Amino acid sequence: DPTSVPYFSLIVVPGDTKPSPRGRKNRDSSAPGQTQPDSLVPPAAEVLVVGLGPGPDRWITPEVAEALAEVDHVIGYAPYVDRVPQREGLTRHASGNTVEVDRARAALDLALDGERVAVVSGGDAGIFGMAAAVFEAAEDPAYAEVPIRVLPGLSAVQVVAARAGAPIGGDFAVMSLSDRLKPWALIETRLRAVAQADLVLAVYNPRSRSRTTQVADMQRVLLEHRAAETVVVVGRDVGRAEESLVVTTLGELDPESIDMKCLLIVGASGTRTTSAGQAWTPRFVD
Amino acid sequence: DPTSVPYFSLIVVPGDTKPSPRGRKNRDSSAPGQTQPDSLVPPAAEVLVVGLGPGPDRWITPEVAEALAEVDHVIGYAPYVDRVPQREGLTRHASGNTVEVDRARAALDLALDGERVAVVSGGDAGIFGMAAAVFEAAEDPAYAEVPIRVLPGLSAVQVVAARAGAPIGGDFAVMSLSDRLKPWALIETRLRAVAQADLVLAVYNPRSRSRTTQVADMQRVLLEHRAAETVVVVGRDVGRAEESLVVTTLGELDPESIDMKCLLIVGASGTRTTSAGQAWTPRFVD
Repeated sequence: DPTSVPYFSLIVVPGDTKPSPRGRKNRDSSAPGQTQPDSLVPPAAEVLVVGLGPGPDRWITPEVAEALAEVDHVIGYAPYVDRVPQREGLTRHASGNTVEVDRARAALDLALDGERVAVVSGGDAGIFGMAAAVFEAAEDPAYAEVPIRVLPGLSAVQVVAARAGAPIGGDFAVMSLSDRLKPWALIETRLRAVAQADLVLAVYNPRSRSRTTQVADMQRVLLEHRAAETVVVVGRDVGRAEESLVVTTLGELDPESIDMKCLLIVGASGTRTTSAGQAWTPRFVD
Repeated sequence: DPTSVPYFSLIVVPGDTKPSPRGRKNRDSSAPGQTQPDSLVPPAAEVLVVGLGPGPDRWITPEVAEALAEVDHVIGYAPYVDRVPQREGLTRHASGNTVEVDRARAALDLALDGERVAVVSGGDAGIFGMAAAVFEAAEDPAYAEVPIRVLPGLSAVQVVAARAGAPIGGDFAVMSLSDRLKPWALIETRLRAVAQADLVLAVYNPRSRSRTTQVADMQRVLLEHRAAETVVVVGRDVGRAEESLVVTTLGELDPESIDMKCLLIVGASGTRTTSAGQAWTPRFVD
């Protein structure tokens, strides 16, 4: 059962092909005093960074499905790697959640050896996914020759918005509420700017096991600039069997009801609800 | 050749099945003094609002492809309708570009008659697509019983970002530069807020035949808050044969090079480029 794989860094999923680096040997094993002819060093393969979408296969693009059918290795956070079906010739590497740059380096190393690698993200790899982490790791000059290609995917904000109606029908902002990689003071500045400019706001990473106060802090900051009646959509596990969707207001939002599986959409002043309980933001602003 | 259809409102694409409303007759034709039994009125069908993605079929989700294989009618701006393959039993209705609400009403009318309809958008229907227009039309109490379901799709910002690297790797905003539906003063307020909060900015609808000054105005406003060296990505027709991608700076951006087929991404202060010319925004901010 691949889902039982423990989430530590870069283990090969049991039962998968063992990796057999093709080029590494050529690079590392030249005896002292011998010059390795360039022609024996295979060219670096491309690192693909792909988004699997927010859950079900019906949201994986044909482009990503085809790419995953052709690579030698898949690397990513274990639950995403588990979503790539095993097949002959594919090695899947599962890693923990907060080791993005280590994971990216492992992918770049494999590509340098001529192995075709896909780094997998949930959602869109370019939106709080692995794409930026791969470019971060690739700043190391050792990886200068490795091409990086990102393939887009559906992101959580899109499926929560679609499930709710059309809450991002006007201008909007997309923010991560995690202060793991940026200071909270900056997050607060951005929240105020977004609220004052009356943009719809989509919030990723509202809470984690170690970050438990951010939603309440956000609510307090936004309420200084926005009405308590502002429409708020809370999507949880949207697209999965256990999905839930709640349409509430900024004043009534209960921060304790939010966990790491939630995505929030805070409406603009014009955002409204229908009699059927859907939320939408008009295209027009008077 | 379906692409030769003139772009006026709601014509049936030549060669397509003629629409034969099933329920309308029941609703409209009851003779005076006669009461139509409720059981003879078919229930309203659902209006689907689907995003076809920004161009090639490799970006259409399986969910959208399956939905389009089952509806009786497809309604949308002609170039999007043209992308839905004709088949037995499908009627395609092509309309002009700026008649979103008329188009939405036509779809709701068909659904009220029990016809299964998909309203098609390019990109993601929820992001400057048809979803908000359908909810706008559905505010008419006549349509209260019509269920509306939105299916997400890839949006232009995602494919331009992926093609460029990872420019929306941090917090970002998404704005339409069109002042057809909101005043320019509000757009300027939002541009300033986004610039001051150092958010990456994705710009839809930068220019049209009748709106030719917005990009220069935006550039001027942003340069009051952002360095001239700020990385700017200009994607044009990304995903199509004629695609182009330019990575430039806010200072060097030539507004005259931008047309209605372009999507712009203006980086944050941390956005940088690689030696290969890709653009990316770090996940972290110091």
